[in-house]
Amino acid sequence: MLITLLTDFGLDSHYVAQMKGVLYDLADAPEIVDISHSVRPQNVRQAAFIIDQVVDAFPRDTCHIVVVDPGVGSARRILLARSAEQFLIGPDNGVFSTLLERHPPEWVREMTETRFWRKPTSQTFHGRDIMAPTAAHLANGVSPASFGASTMEWCVLTPHELKMGRDRLEGLVIEVDSFGNLISNIPAQFFSQLQTQSEIHSPVVTLKCCSGEAAAEIRVPIVSTYAEGQIGEKVALIGSGGYLEIAVVNGNAAESMAAQVGDRIVVSG
Amino acid sequence: MLITLLTDFGLDSHYVAQMKGVLYDLADAPEIVDISHSVRPQNVRQAAFIIDQVVDAFPRDTCHIVVVDPGVGSARRILLARSAEQFLIGPDNGVFSTLLERHPPEWVREMTETRFWRKPTSQTFHGRDIMAPTAAHLANGVSPASFGASTMEWCVLTPHELKMGRDRLEGLVIEVDSFGNLISNIPAQFFSQLQTQSEIHSPVVTLKCCSGEAAAEIRVPIVSTYAEGQIGEKVALIGSGGYLEIAVVNGNAAESMAAQVGDRIVVSG
Amino acid sequence: MLITLLTDFGLDSHYVAQMKGVLYDLADAPEIVDISHSVRPQNVRQAAFIIDQVVDAFPRDTCHIVVVDPGVGSARRILLARSAEQFLIGPDNGVFSTLLERHPPEWVREMTETRFWRKPTSQTFHGRDIMAPTAAHLANGVSPASFGASTMEWCVLTPHELKMGRDRLEGLVIEVDSFGNLISNIPAQFFSQLQTQSEIHSPVVTLKCCSGEAAAEIRVPIVSTYAEGQIGEKVALIGSGGYLEIAVVNGNAAESMAAQVGDRIVVSG
Repeated sequence: MLITLLTDFGLDSHYVAQMKGVLYDLADAPEIVDISHSVRPQNVRQAAFIIDQVVDAFPRDTCHIVVVDPGVGSARRILLARSAEQFLIGPDNGVFSTLLERHPPEWVREMTETRFWRKPTSQTFHGRDIMAPTAAHLANGVSPASFGASTMEWCVLTPHELKMGRDRLEGLVIEVDSFGNLISNIPAQFFSQLQTQSEIHSPVVTLKCCSGEAAAEIRVPIVSTYAEGQIGEKVALIGSGGYLEIAVVNGNAAESMAAQVGDRIVVSG
Repeated sequence: MLITLLTDFGLDSHYVAQMKGVLYDLADAPEIVDISHSVRPQNVRQAAFIIDQVVDAFPRDTCHIVVVDPGVGSARRILLARSAEQFLIGPDNGVFSTLLERHPPEWVREMTETRFWRKPTSQTFHGRDIMAPTAAHLANGVSPASFGASTMEWCVLTPHELKMGRDRLEGLVIEVDSFGNLISNIPAQFFSQLQTQSEIHSPVVTLKCCSGEAAAEIRVPIVSTYAEGQIGEKVALIGSGGYLEIAVVNGNAAESMAAQVGDRIVVSG
Repeated sequence: MLITLLTDFGLDSHYVAQMKGVLYDLADAPEIVDISHSVRPQNVRQAAFIIDQVVDAFPRDTCHIVVVDPGVGSARRILLARSAEQFLIGPDNGVFSTLLERHPPEWVREMTETRFWRKPTSQTFHGRDIMAPTAAHLANGVSPASFGASTMEWCVLTPHELKMGRDRLEGLVIEVDSFGNLISNIPAQFFSQLQTQSEIHSPVVTLKCCSGEAAAEIRVPIVSTYAEGQIGEKVALIGSGGYLEIAVVNGNAAESMAAQVGDRIVVSG
C-alpha cells in the first residue's frame, strides 16, 4: 500500500524516521511518500490546504497520514476516513475538512481500538504509536471497521473569507509557495463564472497588502501562463492547483511585493 | 533489505543521492529510509543521540548507515556491527557508542576487505565508496564475516554529565527538536526512581540557562502530556524518546526561554 | 524502474509530492529517489552541474527527471534523451548539456505526443502533467520513439570559463556544498596534466575572492584528503566529484574565507 506522510515535524526530523520505521516494521511492503514536513508548527489550516491540493494526484487506495496535532494527548479524537477513494488518518481537528467538503467521505471512523496501537503508547507521539500502526494494519488487510465505530461528525474549519459579487470577487492569499507565488482561495471556476456571467470581460486583479508600513494596492494583469509575461513582470493566473495566484515571472512575488498570507486579493472590472 | 541513512550532508544534498544510486546499483531491491541529513557538520555526538533514538522503531535486520565522519581519509576504522538485531555501518568515532551501551553488540567487525569497495575509492567520500557498497553486499546475502575481522574495541564518547543524588537529578539539554522542545539526558527511569525512592513526591524541574546576558533560572511544572498545560505554558514531561524534556504548549521553548544545547536541567524537591 | 527527481521546487515542497503521486498512479512499481529540490529557483546551470555529478552513481536504465524550467508554458521543447545508458527527461534549456558533453547521447527526442500527458494539462506545471507521466509510461515499457521524433539539436550552456596554460590553470568556484567546500570547474585530469606535462611539480592553489570590501588572495596547500590537514587548516584537493575544491578541515571554507560562487581559483607554480 502507498502511504503518505504530512506533518509539522520539520525538515529532516528523526520523528518522521521513527514513523517510517514503524510502518516498515508492521506493514508488508509499504511504499512511503513524504508530502511535506514543513507545515508551520500546529498550523492545521495549512495542512488542510496541502492535503486537499495533493490528493487528486495519488492513486486509489493511497493512505494519507496527517500529523499536525496540537491536541495530542488531549481528548481529541483520531479519525480514519475514506474520501476520493483513498484513506485518511489524522486527528479530528479540521485538517481534513477542506478535502472532505470537496470529496464527501464514504465513511468516517473514530480510531478507538487500542489493540492496534504500539505499546507502550506515548502520550506525546500518536503519529508513531497510533496512526502509523493503523496505516500498517490497514495495508495488511485489516478491515476499516475493526479500528473503531463510524461517526457522522467531525471538526470543520471556518472557511477562509471569499466574497463573490455580481462583478467582483474578493479572497485572500492563503499560501506562499517555494517560488514566492501568492496562492489565493479563489477557485478557477469562480473566476470563469465572473468572466462569463458578468459584464466584465477583461477583469483586473488587485493585491491589497495589509502588512508593512503603508497599505499598498498593486494591480496585476491576468495571463494564462508565466511565459506570457516578461521576466520580472507581475502576473495573475490560475495556478496548477486550480486557484488564482499572483506571481513574478522568474522572480519572487512575496519578496518583491512584500506580500504574505492573509493579504487580500480582489478581482474586478 | 531496509537501509537507513543518517548523515551531516545537509538538507537535500546530492551527496545523499549518490549513496542511494550506489545502493540501487549494487543491491537487489533495497528499501531506503532517510533518518536525517541535518546533523550539524561533524557533530558525532548529535548523530549518536539520533541513531539511539530511532533504532527501536525499526524492524529486525534493518541496516543503518551513519556518515558523520570528520576523520574521513585518516586511519580511523570503519565498523560493521550487529546490535538490537540490526546492522550498523559507520566510522569508528563513537557515533554508535550510545546505542551500543544500551544494546550491547553481538559482534563488531572492522571493514577492511577492499574487494567490496567501489573503485576508484575516493579519499573523501567513504559513505558512497565503502559504506553504501558494504550495505548493498550485505543486503545481497554476503556474510558479515566477509567484510573484515572481528574487533573487541571501539570508540566510546564521554557520556553527557548526569548527576543523581538522593533527592536531586542534574542533567543537560542535549538536543533541541524542530518544535523547540528541550530534550535532556535524564532518562525516564531515573526520574521515576527519584519519585519512588526519595522523599520527593512532587518534584520540580528547573532550567538553568547559561547563555545570554544574565544566567536565568526557570521553574517548570511537571505534566504527563502537553495537553495538560495551557497554551503557551512551560511544562516538563517525559518525551516520546524516553527522556525528560521541557516544552511550551503549542509554542517553542527554545525561543521563548532563550535556551540551547548545554543548558542545565535540575529535578529537585 | 528507478526514477529520480531534481527540481527547484524547494525543500519539502508538495509540488514534488504531486509528481510522486502521478508516478505511483501511472507506473507499475516505480522506485523514486530525490536528487535535490534545493536548486536555486530557475538556476539551470546549478541543475546541470548536479545531474552531471550524480549520474555515474546510478544504475543502467535509471530515468532522471529534471524540472528546473523557467520557460514552462512557453514554446521551449521538452526532451527525452538516452545518455550514459540512462534516460533523461527535462526542458530543453541546457540543463543536460554538461552531462551530454561528457556522455554524448545515443539519441534525443522531442516529447510532442500529447496522448501520454495528464489531462487537463496545466500550463504551469509540466513536471507533473508531462514529464512524470512520460517517465511512468517509459517505466511501463512504452518505447521511447512513441513519445516524439528524434532531434539532433538541443540547448547548450556556455561553459564556465576555464583557462589552461603551460604552467597555469584558472577556473571558477561553481558550487558551494553543504559543508562550505568550494567546488571548482577544474577537472582532476587537467590538474594531473599540469603536474606531469609542465615544469611545475608542486603547484599552489590561489583563491581570488571577488566579493567583499577588498579583493583577497588566499594561497592554499594541496593535499590528497582532508585528514592530511590540521583541523581548521585551508586545503585544496580533488573532491569526490572529480573537481579541484578548497576546504577547511572540519570547518566551513565559504564562511571562513568569505568566498562564493564565481570567485576565481588559480593553480600555478
